[in-house]
Amino acid sequence: MSQELASLRDALREFAAERDWDQFHSPKNLAAALSVEAAELLEQFQWLSEQQSRALDSAQLEAVRQELADVLLYLVRLADKLDVDLIAAAKAKLGLNALKYPVDKARGSSRKYTEY
Amino acid sequence: MSQELASLRDALREFAAERDWDQFHSPKNLAAALSVEAAELLEQFQWLSEQQSRALDSAQLEAVRQELADVLLYLVRLADKLDVDLIAAAKAKLGLNALKYPVDKARGSSRKYTEY
Amino acid sequence: MSQELASLRDALREFAAERDWDQFHSPKNLAAALSVEAAELLEQFQWLSEQQSRALDSAQLEAVRQELADVLLYLVRLADKLDVDLIAAAKAKLGLNALKYPVDKARGSSRKYTEY
Amino acid sequence: MSQELASLRDALREFAAERDWDQFHSPKNLAAALSVEAAELLEQFQWLSEQQSRALDSAQLEAVRQELADVLLYLVRLADKLDVDLIAAAKAKLGLNALKYPVDKARGSSRKYTEY
Repeated sequence: MSQELASLRDALREFAAERDWDQFHSPKNLAAALSVEAAELLEQFQWLSEQQSRALDSAQLEAVRQELADVLLYLVRLADKLDVDLIAAAKAKLGLNALKYPVDKARGSSRKYTEY
Repeated sequence: MSQELASLRDALREFAAERDWDQFHSPKNLAAALSVEAAELLEQFQWLSEQQSRALDSAQLEAVRQELADVLLYLVRLADKLDVDLIAAAKAKLGLNALKYPVDKARGSSRKYTEY
Repeated sequence: MSQELASLRDALREFAAERDWDQFHSPKNLAAALSVEAAELLEQFQWLSEQQSRALDSAQLEAVRQELADVLLYLVRLADKLDVDLIAAAKAKLGLNALKYPVDKARGSSRKYTEY
Repeated sequence: MSQELASLRDALREFAAERDWDQFHSPKNLAAALSVEAAELLEQFQWLSEQQSRALDSAQLEAVRQELADVLLYLVRLADKLDVDLIAAAKAKLGLNALKYPVDKARGSSRKYTEY
């Protein structure tokens, strides 16, 4: 695991321990909380056009930045509770995705792209 | 940014470029995709009790591991498109959360906890 | 379509027309908004135990009631934009589900239940 | 409650009873399931442009129709468990929304629109 993610993991452990919040942090609950944070992130974009989403103003970007952070925090916390190495898992999944979407078949195709 | 996250970011850039998928990767679309992946993660837990979610069998854990990976991959990709440093954003947000939930008031309270 | 759902549909048409919001109400955007509202509903429950979720106090229930309402409103609006009859679609889907989960195989099994 | 929604509610009660699934249908779990279904609906649109989402082909529309149905089914089931009248709740919420977004201030403005 990367040093930075391990550092976040440790900070989150301390944060929960100080507040006696481990009792609420079952993997099931953390997965729900992660999903809620991902929706709060999406909310920032829901009425924007794709083009507008590429050109956020500084207030929008700061709001998005905080939601991205919340998603990462819950992701690190959940992975910790399940003893999953996020970086190793992501590398392995990227390898699976490369097999699932061969370059020659997937190239530029939103049709193929949507069919997973 | 951590070396490992930068490495994932670069691998995702190459993955998209090879498939000509940057055209689909607006921040708006990536936020939707991230939210969908977070829901697929939640789906793994939705009918389990909290206790069962703490004791996944190996098949369940592998499925969860792949969904955690997908969430991280889209998170890194979206942060890249918006030029956000995820680790710095998470550290800053953790500081804000510490102010929002002072230890003495938040301790062991699911009531306070649910009120954000 | 039921008289009540048709009445909601008409009220939502008028609501959007008065505010010139049809320009934002593409099916894609409405599906994102619906998903965000469903997450706001889930947020009400995320730190509760299952048992607590069965015994909401009046303030919790009112908050949940408003989120249920928001989900229905976006659902009716999206179905209207796609010209889908929600009641007919739900009846048809219930028939498909009955085939997918035969009583004798699905009975009391969270294992089978989670495998869809 | 509308006759059609009451009929769906009763069919869902019977469906769950026959399979002994009430044990899984806590409001908390149903809210998670509803959120997962809403994400499956969003998944149908995630890589489409807004314009494409307004012109689905028949296969896409059938997939969307089934996801809309699943959302309605879980919504009716959850409302039943909480003894909430969906139609009454939606009418009340629409009234609140009219106060929140006055026609003269909200007209045509995606800025105001995104600020809730």
